[in-house]
Amino acid sequence: MAAMATEEDLGTRIEEALRLRFTERSTAAEAYGPEFAALWRAAAEHALGGKLIRPRLLLDFRLALSAAGLTHEEAACAVDIAANVELLHYAFLLHDDVIDGDLIRRRRPNLIGSLAERRSDDPDDAELHWARSSAILMGDLLLASAVLGFARADVAVDTRDRLLALMEQTILETVAGEHTDIGLSDGIIPPDLRTILSMSAYKTATYSFVLPLRAAAVLAGASASAEEQLTAIGRHLGLAYQLQDDLLSVFGDAEEHGKDAFSDLREGKETAIIAYARMTGHWPSIELHFGAPELSTRQCTDIRDRLRECGAEGFARSLVEEQLGAVSTVLAEAETAGTISPAAGRTILALASRIESRRA
Amino acid sequence: MAAMATEEDLGTRIEEALRLRFTERSTAAEAYGPEFAALWRAAAEHALGGKLIRPRLLLDFRLALSAAGLTHEEAACAVDIAANVELLHYAFLLHDDVIDGDLIRRRRPNLIGSLAERRSDDPDDAELHWARSSAILMGDLLLASAVLGFARADVAVDTRDRLLALMEQTILETVAGEHTDIGLSDGIIPPDLRTILSMSAYKTATYSFVLPLRAAAVLAGASASAEEQLTAIGRHLGLAYQLQDDLLSVFGDAEEHGKDAFSDLREGKETAIIAYARMTGHWPSIELHFGAPELSTRQCTDIRDRLRECGAEGFARSLVEEQLGAVSTVLAEAETAGTISPAAGRTILALASRIESRRA
Repeated sequence: MAAMATEEDLGTRIEEALRLRFTERSTAAEAYGPEFAALWRAAAEHALGGKLIRPRLLLDFRLALSAAGLTHEEAACAVDIAANVELLHYAFLLHDDVIDGDLIRRRRPNLIGSLAERRSDDPDDAELHWARSSAILMGDLLLASAVLGFARADVAVDTRDRLLALMEQTILETVAGEHTDIGLSDGIIPPDLRTILSMSAYKTATYSFVLPLRAAAVLAGASASAEEQLTAIGRHLGLAYQLQDDLLSVFGDAEEHGKDAFSDLREGKETAIIAYARMTGHWPSIELHFGAPELSTRQCTDIRDRLRECGAEGFARSLVEEQLGAVSTVLAEAETAGTISPAAGRTILALASRIESRRA
Repeated sequence: MAAMATEEDLGTRIEEALRLRFTERSTAAEAYGPEFAALWRAAAEHALGGKLIRPRLLLDFRLALSAAGLTHEEAACAVDIAANVELLHYAFLLHDDVIDGDLIRRRRPNLIGSLAERRSDDPDDAELHWARSSAILMGDLLLASAVLGFARADVAVDTRDRLLALMEQTILETVAGEHTDIGLSDGIIPPDLRTILSMSAYKTATYSFVLPLRAAAVLAGASASAEEQLTAIGRHLGLAYQLQDDLLSVFGDAEEHGKDAFSDLREGKETAIIAYARMTGHWPSIELHFGAPELSTRQCTDIRDRLRECGAEGFARSLVEEQLGAVSTVLAEAETAGTISPAAGRTILALASRIESRRA
């Protein structure tokens, strides 16, 4: 009995699947004391507030790969794997926030900020330590949960093995990318352009783009060469996405993108834009203020103008085009070889187009 | 072709299995830059220096459960699962050290200390941040690796499902125990005796005793009731072990046990000994100095004498006896019911006896 499952329907089901997981865990956590249960409830609240970009991509692509629609079982399995992808994402976010010392995400308290606030309005060192340590531990639980979720997928043995290999590679590359990113911001690793681009590919593209696309392909029984092509496509899409992110922080409209304007400049974030600027004669005047937390809006717009003049903006925009061009090239090869269907190709091109015109 | 595998032989094989895993990873890590490869090499050095208590317990018990000895396949599988138990242990240690801010373990630099030392003799904030962040990330990799190792065990489907359920429960309880421990030391959770004992059971007993015993039982095809009895036995053993640890730090011979004498008193560690003392009239005089990092040896011996006088030492020693007595009771029931063999029972009793006479 093959029932069609629509995109809308599956989107709602990811939310339900995630909500169910957290509710079950929060209840089970009661046995370990009120503070542990409170941690689970707080984590649920934060984890469920996301835009579900990665699981939605997985499901969109999974639907595109099956012209005849998904059976109940296939849909349930895709939703389950998609929920695990979101858990992995949230686990990474938590450890990222601990490492960066952040208490805020998208202008609201993150899990650490909320846990600290629950103790007092002006948390002391012990309260912040408690909140950060809680986030490390919740990250561990959700990371393990995501891996266990992949391990328990209700699929054939060889599909499960492919999913586990994908999960392993994803975690390794994401962690490697994060490690390089920290090395860059701590001044341990030199910020050359090549390092920054490979860091972005590993830290962002692998789990946000390659993982959803490949997981969908594995669930749909795609070939190993399709997986390989999707790895390349996901990497190009992810790099383009990250470069757009970097561009938005400096040249975008803060009203539209909703992040703190110029936060990258105040944080001294090593991006492709900055790596390019370093190689130009404008760098000494940019370096003077770059990375100062107290920069005024006026100083930031000055730096922005210099980054434009020195050609860094144009360079980053051309990189975005290059990456999106590479997506089309790999996709055309895949369609010619018959490894990726035209419908699946359209899903990828629609995503590339959203990244290209991204304003928020 | 059933070949016997001896205890000695299997012990060596765990080391080899761990070494192989780390060597493979260190080599693969080269692709992600020299710093990431260096992190893997440093982690290997530290992880391979352990006493392998947990994997050895697993293998001892696995051998005891099979009167006829292990086939090559059974031995290989037990070694593989044992290596994953050690990886889980080391992942927990790394995150523990990050949370506690420790740079030293057993009088030598831990991974964080080594990574910081590699940067400079007197590491600055950025260098310490780099070292701590690296330890968070390596903990993530090893945690995921341990779960993946269980997921890929070369066993029947229902055995694998039991192993995964065991792994999930282990991680949940260990993290819950660690969370409570942090809450105690940050002054968030009140240090009553019941909380401290359940914290110890979750934080230490679950993964150090219950996990190895149950994993061995699952691999040997033991019944669900055997697993349940081993959960109780492991919890009692683990509590006795932790209480002995607490006793050693205050009343033991530092020359013998090799840890810093009185470190628990200087750190203000909330143990069963302290929880008991809090309920006595001696507490005000103990509280005066308890938890002061700069305590002299003389002040520490003063506190030690008071902890003895108020009955806290005797109380903790009686708890050890009570826990070990409970091990014998559950074991006798299990042997009567035929769920645990006499040979397996002897392995448990030998372990109980080592814990009872523990001096280091």
